[in-house]
Amino acid sequence: MAHPITPLSPPLKDELDIVIPTIRNLDFLEMWRPFLQPYHLIIVQDGDPTKVINVPDGFDYELYNRNDVNRVLGPKASCISFKDSACRCFGFLVSKKKYIFTIDDDCFVAKDPSGKEINALAQHIQNLLTPSTPLFFNTLYDPYREGADFVRGYPFSLREGVSTAISHGLWLNIPDYDAPTQLVKPRERNTRYVDAVMTIPKGTLFPMSGMNLAFDRELIGPAMYFGLMDYGQPFGRYDDMWAGWCAKVICDHLNLGVKTGLPYIWHSKASNPFVNLKKEYKGIYLQEEIIPFFQSIVFSKKCTTMVKVKLGYVSHYFQQLGDAMLTWIEAWVELNPPKEASAAAEPKSLKKEEPSPKST
Amino acid sequence: MAHPITPLSPPLKDELDIVIPTIRNLDFLEMWRPFLQPYHLIIVQDGDPTKVINVPDGFDYELYNRNDVNRVLGPKASCISFKDSACRCFGFLVSKKKYIFTIDDDCFVAKDPSGKEINALAQHIQNLLTPSTPLFFNTLYDPYREGADFVRGYPFSLREGVSTAISHGLWLNIPDYDAPTQLVKPRERNTRYVDAVMTIPKGTLFPMSGMNLAFDRELIGPAMYFGLMDYGQPFGRYDDMWAGWCAKVICDHLNLGVKTGLPYIWHSKASNPFVNLKKEYKGIYLQEEIIPFFQSIVFSKKCTTMVKVKLGYVSHYFQQLGDAMLTWIEAWVELNPPKEASAAAEPKSLKKEEPSPKST
Repeated sequence: MAHPITPLSPPLKDELDIVIPTIRNLDFLEMWRPFLQPYHLIIVQDGDPTKVINVPDGFDYELYNRNDVNRVLGPKASCISFKDSACRCFGFLVSKKKYIFTIDDDCFVAKDPSGKEINALAQHIQNLLTPSTPLFFNTLYDPYREGADFVRGYPFSLREGVSTAISHGLWLNIPDYDAPTQLVKPRERNTRYVDAVMTIPKGTLFPMSGMNLAFDRELIGPAMYFGLMDYGQPFGRYDDMWAGWCAKVICDHLNLGVKTGLPYIWHSKASNPFVNLKKEYKGIYLQEEIIPFFQSIVFSKKCTTMVKVKLGYVSHYFQQLGDAMLTWIEAWVELNPPKEASAAAEPKSLKKEEPSPKST
Repeated sequence: MAHPITPLSPPLKDELDIVIPTIRNLDFLEMWRPFLQPYHLIIVQDGDPTKVINVPDGFDYELYNRNDVNRVLGPKASCISFKDSACRCFGFLVSKKKYIFTIDDDCFVAKDPSGKEINALAQHIQNLLTPSTPLFFNTLYDPYREGADFVRGYPFSLREGVSTAISHGLWLNIPDYDAPTQLVKPRERNTRYVDAVMTIPKGTLFPMSGMNLAFDRELIGPAMYFGLMDYGQPFGRYDDMWAGWCAKVICDHLNLGVKTGLPYIWHSKASNPFVNLKKEYKGIYLQEEIIPFFQSIVFSKKCTTMVKVKLGYVSHYFQQLGDAMLTWIEAWVELNPPKEASAAAEPKSLKKEEPSPKST
């Protein structure tokens, strides 16, 4: 019953929450026990709140179902997707920690080429605690890694790097393909272990998967909004993509880094490509409009209507999504008040005109 | 004496030249024989033209020393560095092939993690013959590689990619570090085989090493100018960097791709860090001015004085270099006349005001 294989001092133990969206019993945690048991879990139950989710013994967790989401957020609960793993962002909202690691319940511990089990969380923490290099490409990949450095010709003025906001991990076995690619390549498995972490350069967008992801909640938390997806919405499976596009342009704006590469997890099973196609097909053409929007974004000091104004013509959905983003930010400020305001009852705007002296 | 280990149909055999700058006998070619013997070599002898360079039997080559450079280019020979591996670009100039692979004579055949010898040229050819994806980052690296594809969220409109102009290979054993890093980490060796090829995103500069490099001469040849370096010049070891910065901004402008990663070669010995420091030290601070210049370049239809005008204030050297770049382009056009002009005696400007109907 007891599994006391707790490492002596797990890094960031009191500064990191693990967020898991799920519709099923969390048996997958058994395999993760040696690595994740010391940490606090926030489980967000997706869909039917009457279903009971079992969590293996020995894990420290809080679990929120839809009734809890409604109770905590009241009318603002409208910004959290129902019946979709996009609901994971509710966990980001209620966490009080600096760092988040979020993982899907069909992701297991992968092995490196030497056969050693990969502690994905430890690698994410290393990625987040070392700088990023978004302003110039280093051909030997992560220059802060042991055995590597900046190569000849890398400007010395850029070698301090910038703070890392996001660590995007990858997947062995089932790659994170869209439905058309799943249909065309039903047997394709990712067997290639690429032993690298790299910074995604400034100005470059990427497809951020939410399956195996960590981030600095203080630096970028409010940008990690997974949108309105699936149930009651025109499409699904773009929750993490939306969050990734938003978060990347905001990281670029704030001079923060986004890394991708290690760690790998073992993605156990492909979701149904026919179901996925139904969820995705509107997103597949909408993204052709969304990407140029994100590629051309220039931030003003107070821009609260950009998605509604610039994408509203594409679909009424973006009017709704723009509203939901504002609701999300209001909810974020309510649950995570700026430090100088935490004693006050009224939530305040996150973007202040004057710099706030206490929040550093 | 004869080594008839020629593969049956080596790819691009009649469309690719191998350019090697050297000051010594080319014994290193023995190890490359199984992979490189079918191809034509252009050897550019660096420094003292009276020295005799031995080339192993069985290789098909032409060799140019400084006397040949002067004979072929006349007064325009001033644009080719003397006593520096930057002279390799003379080989790019006199080649008549579509593709170039250039390699240093201290680079040997590396082994992949399974122990198999790596055919670097074959990998470069594969890199050049498959598209690049500079407009959006694919998290599973090269999507055209077997076993990989574009991931969920990658815009379908960008999946055709763009033509690849440059393939930048890496180095096991001695990494390509600058003198300060060599001095600080004299024992560091690159032992990490990262099994990936990736496109360097549009708008991002990188340090291009000339040690293990291939490119499409028709697409980008004239941009591969290695500058004025070392002997008689204020600094050295920035020849490949200069070419890389020029070539990358031009690739971005022309919507061409630059790849980096595989193939690895085995870089056998570190050059002397004290000598390197002397060569580099001016470049180390000049690059802090050069990088912002390249990051801010906007091309006009006819821009022939940008380096002189925008970098001339930094050092008189850039006045000279700007002139040398124009001389290089004149030499390129003379030796590689546009198709419709090849019958005419007079060289013409490479940049024409009217599009030329025959040159496609």
